Amino acid sequence: MSEAALTLEGWYALHDFRSINWAAWRAADDETRAVATDELQEFLNAWAADEESGKGSSTVYTVVGQKADFVMMHLRETLEDLNAIENAFNKTTFAQFTTKSYSYVSVVELSNYLGKDEDPMQNPQIVARLKPVLPKNQYICFYPMNKKRDLSDNWYMLSMDERKTMMRSHGMIGRSYAGKVKQIITGSVGFDDWEWGVTLFSDDALQFKKLIYEMRFDEVSARYGEFGSFYVGSLLTQESFEAMLKL
Amino acid sequence: MSEAALTLEGWYALHDFRSINWAAWRAADDETRAVATDELQEFLNAWAADEESGKGSSTVYTVVGQKADFVMMHLRETLEDLNAIENAFNKTTFAQFTTKSYSYVSVVELSNYLGKDEDPMQNPQIVARLKPVLPKNQYICFYPMNKKRDLSDNWYMLSMDERKTMMRSHGMIGRSYAGKVKQIITGSVGFDDWEWGVTLFSDDALQFKKLIYEMRFDEVSARYGEFGSFYVGSLLTQESFEAMLKL
Amino acid sequence: MSEAALTLEGWYALHDFRSINWAAWRAADDETRAVATDELQEFLNAWAADEESGKGSSTVYTVVGQKADFVMMHLRETLEDLNAIENAFNKTTFAQFTTKSYSYVSVVELSNYLGKDEDPMQNPQIVARLKPVLPKNQYICFYPMNKKRDLSDNWYMLSMDERKTMMRSHGMIGRSYAGKVKQIITGSVGFDDWEWGVTLFSDDALQFKKLIYEMRFDEVSARYGEFGSFYVGSLLTQESFEAMLKL
Amino acid sequence: MSEAALTLEGWYALHDFRSINWAAWRAADDETRAVATDELQEFLNAWAADEESGKGSSTVYTVVGQKADFVMMHLRETLEDLNAIENAFNKTTFAQFTTKSYSYVSVVELSNYLGKDEDPMQNPQIVARLKPVLPKNQYICFYPMNKKRDLSDNWYMLSMDERKTMMRSHGMIGRSYAGKVKQIITGSVGFDDWEWGVTLFSDDALQFKKLIYEMRFDEVSARYGEFGSFYVGSLLTQESFEAMLKL
Amino acid sequence: MSEAALTLEGWYALHDFRSINWAAWRAADDETRAVATDELQEFLNAWAADEESGKGSSTVYTVVGQKADFVMMHLRETLEDLNAIENAFNKTTFAQFTTKSYSYVSVVELSNYLGKDEDPMQNPQIVARLKPVLPKNQYICFYPMNKKRDLSDNWYMLSMDERKTMMRSHGMIGRSYAGKVKQIITGSVGFDDWEWGVTLFSDDALQFKKLIYEMRFDEVSARYGEFGSFYVGSLLTQESFEAMLKL
Repeated sequence: MSEAALTLEGWYALHDFRSINWAAWRAADDETRAVATDELQEFLNAWAADEESGKGSSTVYTVVGQKADFVMMHLRETLEDLNAIENAFNKTTFAQFTTKSYSYVSVVELSNYLGKDEDPMQNPQIVARLKPVLPKNQYICFYPMNKKRDLSDNWYMLSMDERKTMMRSHGMIGRSYAGKVKQIITGSVGFDDWEWGVTLFSDDALQFKKLIYEMRFDEVSARYGEFGSFYVGSLLTQESFEAMLKL
Repeated sequence: MSEAALTLEGWYALHDFRSINWAAWRAADDETRAVATDELQEFLNAWAADEESGKGSSTVYTVVGQKADFVMMHLRETLEDLNAIENAFNKTTFAQFTTKSYSYVSVVELSNYLGKDEDPMQNPQIVARLKPVLPKNQYICFYPMNKKRDLSDNWYMLSMDERKTMMRSHGMIGRSYAGKVKQIITGSVGFDDWEWGVTLFSDDALQFKKLIYEMRFDEVSARYGEFGSFYVGSLLTQESFEAMLKL
Repeated sequence: MSEAALTLEGWYALHDFRSINWAAWRAADDETRAVATDELQEFLNAWAADEESGKGSSTVYTVVGQKADFVMMHLRETLEDLNAIENAFNKTTFAQFTTKSYSYVSVVELSNYLGKDEDPMQNPQIVARLKPVLPKNQYICFYPMNKKRDLSDNWYMLSMDERKTMMRSHGMIGRSYAGKVKQIITGSVGFDDWEWGVTLFSDDALQFKKLIYEMRFDEVSARYGEFGSFYVGSLLTQESFEAMLKL
Repeated sequence: MSEAALTLEGWYALHDFRSINWAAWRAADDETRAVATDELQEFLNAWAADEESGKGSSTVYTVVGQKADFVMMHLRETLEDLNAIENAFNKTTFAQFTTKSYSYVSVVELSNYLGKDEDPMQNPQIVARLKPVLPKNQYICFYPMNKKRDLSDNWYMLSMDERKTMMRSHGMIGRSYAGKVKQIITGSVGFDDWEWGVTLFSDDALQFKKLIYEMRFDEVSARYGEFGSFYVGSLLTQESFEAMLKL
Repeated sequence: MSEAALTLEGWYALHDFRSINWAAWRAADDETRAVATDELQEFLNAWAADEESGKGSSTVYTVVGQKADFVMMHLRETLEDLNAIENAFNKTTFAQFTTKSYSYVSVVELSNYLGKDEDPMQNPQIVARLKPVLPKNQYICFYPMNKKRDLSDNWYMLSMDERKTMMRSHGMIGRSYAGKVKQIITGSVGFDDWEWGVTLFSDDALQFKKLIYEMRFDEVSARYGEFGSFYVGSLLTQESFEAMLKL
């Protein structure tokens, strides 16, 4: 059985990173800013309602540094759902005060699922992992990654056994951070420019550094990991988002 | 016989990715937006007419994420035809509300055609593959690719036999997705920055991921495949395009 | 004798790729557009006059896709001549409606010239190749390239004999396209970011693809060729340029 | 014990590189410029107050060349503190006359801390290194870096002993510059696009060049060092910053 | 003795590449253009005065192609001097009609200085090379470069003897161009993104190509040279600069 067949997919994911055009925001009059902020709150409410009704999950975090000012992460049933959220947001008054910084399209995945004689989508534990409610921890960390295909360091030329052995040791490091860091793996082969997106959540941002650094010495990362840009930030509630925008 | 001689080419292809300038679109008055939308519909109609009369084929899809808002894919008889479509579109009112995101110039190709004593362009099955009507499936996936030339992983230094054997196994994975994914291979050596463009169509976007991921373990992709950016989106009919633009 | 000494150089070359700012062009009034178009025609006439008087050669082609809208290729006696053309163009009304897309600075070269007891610049055949009138074929293809210096694939560490043998087989592929494709090789070491520029002309754009693809299996390209962006387009006469600009 | 466990972290760091929009600054009226300058001075005062009260440390330097006009380097207790400084600055009048050039998010770290039976945060010497007052030397040099993972040059596949031996020789070069160059190492795994940021301070800018060049022959740098962009500049006091902005 | 210790440094260097915003320049009224041109001439005069009084040296050249319109190269005693020139220029009326294209920060260096029992700064010949008056030849060529650190092609892992032997043969090619090409080597480790800047001057631009191409077959360049962008242009006197700006 091929690995593609052993992978289960759940909700589609869109990470939407934006920067605020502060000059335009400052130049706007109070009324426009009030309209924009109200509309933003409506969207946050609508996304919260989607989450409550099980239609998906959304969360918003700041991003530290100049890469972006905030990121909206959305999980939904279909690509059209994500596209609809994106387009609706683009049409808001608030969006006119933002610029696009980066985005990532992927799908929540569980790999190496060993199908027994059951439909995994009937297993509530599996469904909960494929269609998760996004954690509301204080910190987020996002990065995209590939498995390397570079001459003698070629992940895809290893046997399934070699890969399994390495992934097991990798997983053990991950498990030692249980309770400290939650992770959501999303697959993006065919959807975006890297093979996976990794989204980590924690109440202690240092744990991101410790976990990823410890893994870097693990052969899977050391020889086969290829990493894109890293984004880190803290939770934006409706209140803190409003405060962030207050001049 | 060289491989260049074994390749058949059909219609030229232009993938034209655009983003919408939502701020300008919102700032425009209703009349301007109406003019722009009408003109866009005229173009969509004209492209549909080209398709009906066998002069070419065009299709329009959204693009999920910030890379672009939509892609227009055109197949036509000559590069001048593509250039004419591009320039005519650039002069429309609607185009003033878009920005260029990415484009790709290539030509539909069939490789390893073993010419018998016939003119392949007299064979209707071959002509249908070289001058295809573009599928109208729900989802599109586009990416450009190269065959690697990196020290010991150099596709172009292999013998034709080695390449054929590998491509055969590659093709078998492709065939196992028959009915689920349609693909159009376009060659771009001499026309654009990668050697090929791959355009996939499916009614289930997950099949793109499963197909490409499964192939990645195949030696042709694992050792010799080099991939550019991936774009994914869903079909835009005249109705859904108009709805997307509606404020 | 070093290879630098075996190379003959002729006219300097500037490839000047531009995009049209269609929004500004549409927004301009008829009179401004008329002034701009007239001035452009004057320049095209002046360049044609330079060509007739043997002072250089210039040609203009469209570029298909978003990389640029057109390319002006100029050959002149000195770098100052090219700089003067560039600056004069930049000061025109028409240039205000264009944006810079890409440019390439190089010099026409003939390599491996085996100097006998003559001054090659007294040989009319050699002068004609070093100071050529640019072809006016229907299609152009331009790309810059390097010879690789990557560990065991290092062109510059080969002996002159090894290089000559490989270049001979390379040249034979080229010659098999005689009558179908004309090529002008320009050297750019010290002038621009790649070592050579290759400009191909043909009345059948497919021949670019077939020639370059066939060469890719040749060891010179397969192991030692490193390629930049490819640009393809069709001839712009005074008439077709005016038509292209007509709203 | 893993290396992640042997690393101590202190204050979070934000390097915030900005360019001045001189055209807008010149176009502003005297009053606006006065308001902007006053507000900037208030911020510099507030950061100095934070430093005096032990809440963090901030410093401002010019950057020579076009990469940026100045850099603000901030150390604070939490990522939220850094985010708050960044957002407050973005809302100022002065910030409207700047553009973002580059930023770096990291955390002060001490590696290879061999924990005895004490809480290192109770050791004043260690705390002083983890939560340092930034030097006010005449010159700054900043660059991000990785340890390579490239086939046979893979830092993360070496044994801890091999790495320790190499780091020791590396440290000895560093120590030979004691009194001439101060350095602050910040870790950025999980926070930004490189693994470490290196910030050097000196009263003689040449010492940066001599130190880094000498280290480049050291195996740690020669085989395993991968460097990003380098930024160099000189101290901006409240007075010299004001002078720099004076038209 | 380390190589860092064997290197002598002189004046700091800033290469400041700019493009002209022709649209804005055309749109300005005659008076503004006159003010801008006068101010530019004052700066050119002030730089010439610095050169006469031995405080430094400055020169201005055009750049052919779209990378930039001109480059100002400054040598001065300190980084602050360069920063002051840069900031003063940025505040001029003329600068508002330019955009930044590229810059390079480095310091004039002589390597492998074998210190005898003398202070090299007392040796007038050495001082003249470390604090040179910039040549006023007709052509300039600038490019940044590194010595490679790529697996088996790692310059910094060679013994000093191996490096000396290779540099000697390299130097001999350089010397064969004496009288034809002058070169100024500037070191940029710790100051900018490459290890060295190379600035060549000649009255025959072809000599740049011949020199660099001949060197490329030399092992130092062939195996260990890594090159950035190349810029080429011709001398701008006060008269020719004014002519260039004349509409």
